[in-house]
Amino acid sequence: MYIQVLENLQRDGKNVISSELLARTCDVNPSQIRKDLAYFGEFGVRGVGYYVQDLITSIKQALGVDRVWKCALVGVGNLGRALLNHREFRLRGFHIVGAFDCDPFKIGEVVSGLEVVCSRRLKERTADLGIELGVITTPPERAQRACNYLVDAGIKGILNFAPARIEVPEGVTVEYVDFFHHFYAVAFNVTLGSQD
Amino acid sequence: MYIQVLENLQRDGKNVISSELLARTCDVNPSQIRKDLAYFGEFGVRGVGYYVQDLITSIKQALGVDRVWKCALVGVGNLGRALLNHREFRLRGFHIVGAFDCDPFKIGEVVSGLEVVCSRRLKERTADLGIELGVITTPPERAQRACNYLVDAGIKGILNFAPARIEVPEGVTVEYVDFFHHFYAVAFNVTLGSQD
Repeated sequence: MYIQVLENLQRDGKNVISSELLARTCDVNPSQIRKDLAYFGEFGVRGVGYYVQDLITSIKQALGVDRVWKCALVGVGNLGRALLNHREFRLRGFHIVGAFDCDPFKIGEVVSGLEVVCSRRLKERTADLGIELGVITTPPERAQRACNYLVDAGIKGILNFAPARIEVPEGVTVEYVDFFHHFYAVAFNVTLGSQD
Repeated sequence: MYIQVLENLQRDGKNVISSELLARTCDVNPSQIRKDLAYFGEFGVRGVGYYVQDLITSIKQALGVDRVWKCALVGVGNLGRALLNHREFRLRGFHIVGAFDCDPFKIGEVVSGLEVVCSRRLKERTADLGIELGVITTPPERAQRACNYLVDAGIKGILNFAPARIEVPEGVTVEYVDFFHHFYAVAFNVTLGSQD
């Protein structure tokens, strides 16, 4: 969240931010902000605040995301295509370097400069391309199979956009990117608001 | 999360689940599960567990999401198209009934059965169609303008897929759907894991 807020400020041409304003923008209390940022090695300058670029750099370093992560995407449907075309990924250091699908009609197609490759070749391509993260954008009923290919290829971090739980062995991290969680949350809040 | 897990179980043909198994699947402790589900009015059956369908119904009722929510989508780029084509939305009760864009080349185009309409007509269409939620899928620099159109149309709940913070008046709920948060989290975990 801090990175998102700070990159937004930077986009608006702001180079410096006070912890109070940062706190308000993030909806976090100022003492929590100071504690969090101290953890990243950033203490701010009294009377000035934080330098936005320095803060972004420090947070990214602390999280280990100040470098390029090569990603494989499995499932070249509508969502997969949207992600392959999403310029923001490259800006954030996440380079999708392999696109995989098991549909023979999709294999060989070029999407956003990448040739779609059969999912069975994931292991071989992962080694060749130095892929470290996997992105699952299959329909829910094919998510586990996509996951198995990624795990078999030795990938330790998976982003699952499919609305399905998947099982992974120990040592593999899964993050669920679940749109509907957010839709339910907004619908719930609107319902509450309308009862006031 | 409970809804996602339970719908997944249902997809796998399971009709009943114990609180222990549900707890393990959700990575939540069993006493928390029992507390949460009691809040939804579901107490389970001793020796049997919870009926999956009843539990889904109770949770959706408690959250006010056991009905159809009509949504407007603003920004018919790659991501917007992916969401418009995403069959899962309709299954979950979120019907995207209006697609808006300010690009004259997109206005009039039909995407997933919807004619793209000029964003300036959002207010008028919101009233006609009974739209309650807005979905922003514009580039970041146009998110605030899209938001302003939605707020002006009287919409109280916004899902923002654009990687940009937006400002809304009191009484309007915004949920940020931020892919990159999840990417950073996975990258961070993989980095930690590789240091073991």
